[in-house]
Amino acid sequence: MNIGIDIGGTNLKAGLVDDDGRILAAVREPLRFRDPETFAETLASLARRAMEAAGVPAEGVRSVGMGVPGAVSGGDILYTANIPLKNIGVETLFRRHLDLPVLLGNDADCAAVGEYFCGAGRGTRNFIVVTLGTGIGAGLILNGRLYTGMGAAGEVGHILVERDGELCNCGRRGCWEQYGSATALIRQTRAAMEAHPDSLLHAVAAENGAVDGRTPFQAALRGDPAALEVCARYVDYLAAGVTDVINLLQPDILALGGGVAAAPEELLLRPLQKLVAEKCYGRHSGMYTEIVRAELGNDAGIIGAAMLDRVI
Amino acid sequence: MNIGIDIGGTNLKAGLVDDDGRILAAVREPLRFRDPETFAETLASLARRAMEAAGVPAEGVRSVGMGVPGAVSGGDILYTANIPLKNIGVETLFRRHLDLPVLLGNDADCAAVGEYFCGAGRGTRNFIVVTLGTGIGAGLILNGRLYTGMGAAGEVGHILVERDGELCNCGRRGCWEQYGSATALIRQTRAAMEAHPDSLLHAVAAENGAVDGRTPFQAALRGDPAALEVCARYVDYLAAGVTDVINLLQPDILALGGGVAAAPEELLLRPLQKLVAEKCYGRHSGMYTEIVRAELGNDAGIIGAAMLDRVI
Repeated sequence: MNIGIDIGGTNLKAGLVDDDGRILAAVREPLRFRDPETFAETLASLARRAMEAAGVPAEGVRSVGMGVPGAVSGGDILYTANIPLKNIGVETLFRRHLDLPVLLGNDADCAAVGEYFCGAGRGTRNFIVVTLGTGIGAGLILNGRLYTGMGAAGEVGHILVERDGELCNCGRRGCWEQYGSATALIRQTRAAMEAHPDSLLHAVAAENGAVDGRTPFQAALRGDPAALEVCARYVDYLAAGVTDVINLLQPDILALGGGVAAAPEELLLRPLQKLVAEKCYGRHSGMYTEIVRAELGNDAGIIGAAMLDRVI
Repeated sequence: MNIGIDIGGTNLKAGLVDDDGRILAAVREPLRFRDPETFAETLASLARRAMEAAGVPAEGVRSVGMGVPGAVSGGDILYTANIPLKNIGVETLFRRHLDLPVLLGNDADCAAVGEYFCGAGRGTRNFIVVTLGTGIGAGLILNGRLYTGMGAAGEVGHILVERDGELCNCGRRGCWEQYGSATALIRQTRAAMEAHPDSLLHAVAAENGAVDGRTPFQAALRGDPAALEVCARYVDYLAAGVTDVINLLQPDILALGGGVAAAPEELLLRPLQKLVAEKCYGRHSGMYTEIVRAELGNDAGIIGAAMLDRVI
């Protein structure tokens, strides 16, 4: 039995997870960052609360896994995108309060580990989760092990899909996440609304209270031409990046996660599968990577963090 | 001690290789394909000749590794690009003539294995060889193991570098090998010669007897503006693909192989290193993949095939 902690930019969640990946108890609290010492103490108290909620003593727990929105190395957090932690020895700080072995993983990696053992990747050997969110991230399970390169591999959001295209936050032009992330989809939707004042996109956005990643799909389901065009173009860019990843790594299954992946199948997953099947190199030898939705939703982070000790 | 056989489209080469990767003896003969049975018999006789040349009996050899220009699975060749072998149980056919365990690998994979143990990849854990030839191929050593996905991963020539670009033999548009292979470089050189009748490219091609992958570099060394432009544009496309591979896999070292990689450093390797360093995602955390030339040249195939038993 392990504890999994999902460290997010706004919330901290901890769960006690059994060896089949079931969350026996989970607790959460909002992140209020003061300093690394207090942060580690909060994590330890969350872990204790999860054990108490499940009625399991620390002696029954092998290790604590933590998913971090950034890069890690051993027991250290190298940096995170949203929390001011740079080169912090989290394991050492944590063990002052709760003496259990600590394993750290990137959050996209933890999602992949969770899906690999308990979700869309069960039974595979090579498995990739691509998460469509603010950016595009990926976790890679290759030959049954988590693959992290020098520590931050899987930066799939920063492969090229449009030469000399949109400037990315990373400094490169034409990166996939400028076309395929939820952020990009919202931007594309806003541009279509501006170009088509009569589009149903306006009504749908008003109903939702804002433009979000669901807006174009909801308007497309009602037959709106501008929305259908937004969706088709978005899927075309998704297919470009997915085809690249599959040509390079040819996993058994590639799962799509993040809010956008929940879009109606006929508008996202099925046209994506069709486009990739038409262009992927493996079709010459009948080797097709299956493209599916991730299954665990928000629990993937806790479950994957708790299972890090099986793949690191 | 192992035997390595490099199966090329025009030549078959076999070598007896010791555990340090030294070729103790090597033999070769032109490929004259009749049928799979005769082909396997030829391979066995080549292996015997290599052992005889080194004065080592079959009892001193652990296994026979073979590098194949195509896809393999276990002891079978699934298909090859240049030899009419489709779903052939080579191991079974071979062992009728020489009863030693057979390991099969793709030729790009064997090159990577050879470089990993005895060349540019020594001492790394994650290592990639990208070969610039007729197309662009790659061999991936990840977490110290050869990575092949479903059997044909590493099709790096078929990642996108130019949306809606040149039509590739694979059926996709804008694939890297349409811009970064030796074939593409020759095509780009010919186009520049047509556009610039006064360019030194013509004189250099006449001296060489033909336009080949060296032509633009030789003319560029003499200061020819058209040739310099060809080289700069070619390196720019090389950098696009190399940056994608590094952002996704972040290996310790990426080695460039193939004839083009032997171009003058100041025209190929150094500007490539500079462009990738400026754009790769790892620069945000100071994690740089080293980009180098492959070291073993034509021997990589024999050495890597002989060492397959250490990474499969």
